[in-house]
Amino acid sequence: MSAGTIHGVGLGPGAPDLMSVRADRLVRATRHIAFFRKRGRPGHARRIVEGLLRADAVEHAMDYPLTTELPPDHPDYRARLAAFYACHADHLAALAAAGEEVVVLCEGDPFFYGSFMHLYTRLAPRAAVRVVPGITGMSGAWTATGTPITWGDDVLTVAMATLPEPELTRRIRDTDALVVMKIGRHLPKLRRAIAAAGRERAAYLVEYAAMAGERIVPIAEAAARAPYFSIALIHGQGRRP
Amino acid sequence: MSAGTIHGVGLGPGAPDLMSVRADRLVRATRHIAFFRKRGRPGHARRIVEGLLRADAVEHAMDYPLTTELPPDHPDYRARLAAFYACHADHLAALAAAGEEVVVLCEGDPFFYGSFMHLYTRLAPRAAVRVVPGITGMSGAWTATGTPITWGDDVLTVAMATLPEPELTRRIRDTDALVVMKIGRHLPKLRRAIAAAGRERAAYLVEYAAMAGERIVPIAEAAARAPYFSIALIHGQGRRP
Ligand SMILES: C[S@@+](CC[C@H](N)C(=O)[O-])C[C@H]1O[C@@H](n2cnc3c(N)ncnc32)[C@H](O)[C@@H]1O
Ligand SMILES: C[S@@+](CC[C@H](N)C(=O)[O-])C[C@H]1O[C@@H](n2cnc3c(N)ncnc32)[C@H](O)[C@@H]1O
Repeated sequence: MSAGTIHGVGLGPGAPDLMSVRADRLVRATRHIAFFRKRGRPGHARRIVEGLLRADAVEHAMDYPLTTELPPDHPDYRARLAAFYACHADHLAALAAAGEEVVVLCEGDPFFYGSFMHLYTRLAPRAAVRVVPGITGMSGAWTATGTPITWGDDVLTVAMATLPEPELTRRIRDTDALVVMKIGRHLPKLRRAIAAAGRERAAYLVEYAAMAGERIVPIAEAAARAPYFSIALIHGQGRRP
Repeated sequence: MSAGTIHGVGLGPGAPDLMSVRADRLVRATRHIAFFRKRGRPGHARRIVEGLLRADAVEHAMDYPLTTELPPDHPDYRARLAAFYACHADHLAALAAAGEEVVVLCEGDPFFYGSFMHLYTRLAPRAAVRVVPGITGMSGAWTATGTPITWGDDVLTVAMATLPEPELTRRIRDTDALVVMKIGRHLPKLRRAIAAAGRERAAYLVEYAAMAGERIVPIAEAAARAPYFSIALIHGQGRRP
């Protein structure tokens, strides 16, 4: 019996037909389908593939541990997450060792700020792992705005809203085009940073890009809290003939 | 008769099965297929869709004007390119006005440093234009390296090798993760900038990501000139449990 492969498969920003032909084939053909989700939720990646799985598919939901009471830099938080990833890596490695093919569903592109990366580093030394890139959430977001993100020599900065406010401000001041992810409850801080950098009128918030509920608002008109799926953008204004 | 739509369709980094299901459907179903190419070459985007087009497809090759004798900031260079884009925008707008559907083939993601953007700005005011996002060349490149590009709070900077050397050096020094595109003859300058930023041992050059000839080399071992399809990367080392 030969060992199976674990495929980290990028699903793109949300619309099922924005996954790649390769991803679509793997999702339809593979028996074991694993995905992350918040406990009690259907799981966003799982929802994207609704209706595509084979009738005998075995689903492996990986429920994030509840860590809301701990700050992300607390050692207990890290330890709990590390144990979570180690446990599921073991489980998927055992399936592969038993000769099964496994698909891990990933939102956007797996290697771009993705949770799959934490499984990948634990699995790569001991199993065959292949990664299928995907359309990122940010591509979905700038496409939704109907305006190109970068031109000519533009510098694009991708930053997380979890950064400290002065650092965000400095980054926003010092770039042509901007993408900010992981916004959620950090939206008021992000808005202050964008205003301090003098770019409030150029910034947009894109919620649920390429999903039901897609919405684009000038950042100045955004609510106090952004949904998990939201991205802030400033479009570059670079050289164009 | 109702007017047709012009679709700017992202094809992804190169492998045909990395285009999206939506792109694949549009490419197979649409009669008019337009694409940029260098005069005398088959055209890279056109090659990606080889074998997919309908038998009665009408191909519209858009040959870039020969501007090698002019520097990109010369007014004649800009004027010649502007005339080129205006001419082809007129042509595609006329097809759409006549009720035809048109697909413009785009490498990677159309709104990310893409030539299609120059048609888009000229067409959007007068025709129905829809954009299908695609997997970027950089996603193809970091996937090829087998290492995630960004973790946790990492800042990713995307810069063009056409920037002045001091500016490149400053950007490379001041980021966690790095992507540099449009390298070509700027490779020696880029290598000096990476070395000056003290990051030569962390940087890789990925040539022809997700295409025949894909190759990853430490930047210190790269040749003096990079092919058009090449991307330099530095992977982020951010927080991970
Ligand atoms: C853990 S990161 C994963 C990114 C993903 N791997 C990608 O390639 O886009 C999650 C963040 O991505 C952003 N995001 C991903 N997809 C999105 C979408 N369709 N619409 C809006 N934001 C999205 C949000 O900022 C969210 O907080
Ligand atoms: C005009 S830009 C177009 C970028 C494209 N729209 C995208 O989304 O990747 C051309 C540059 O993209 C990069 N590039 C695009 N696809 C690539 C690939 N498959 N392999 C290596 N480099 C690529 C190269 O740096 C090239 O000089």
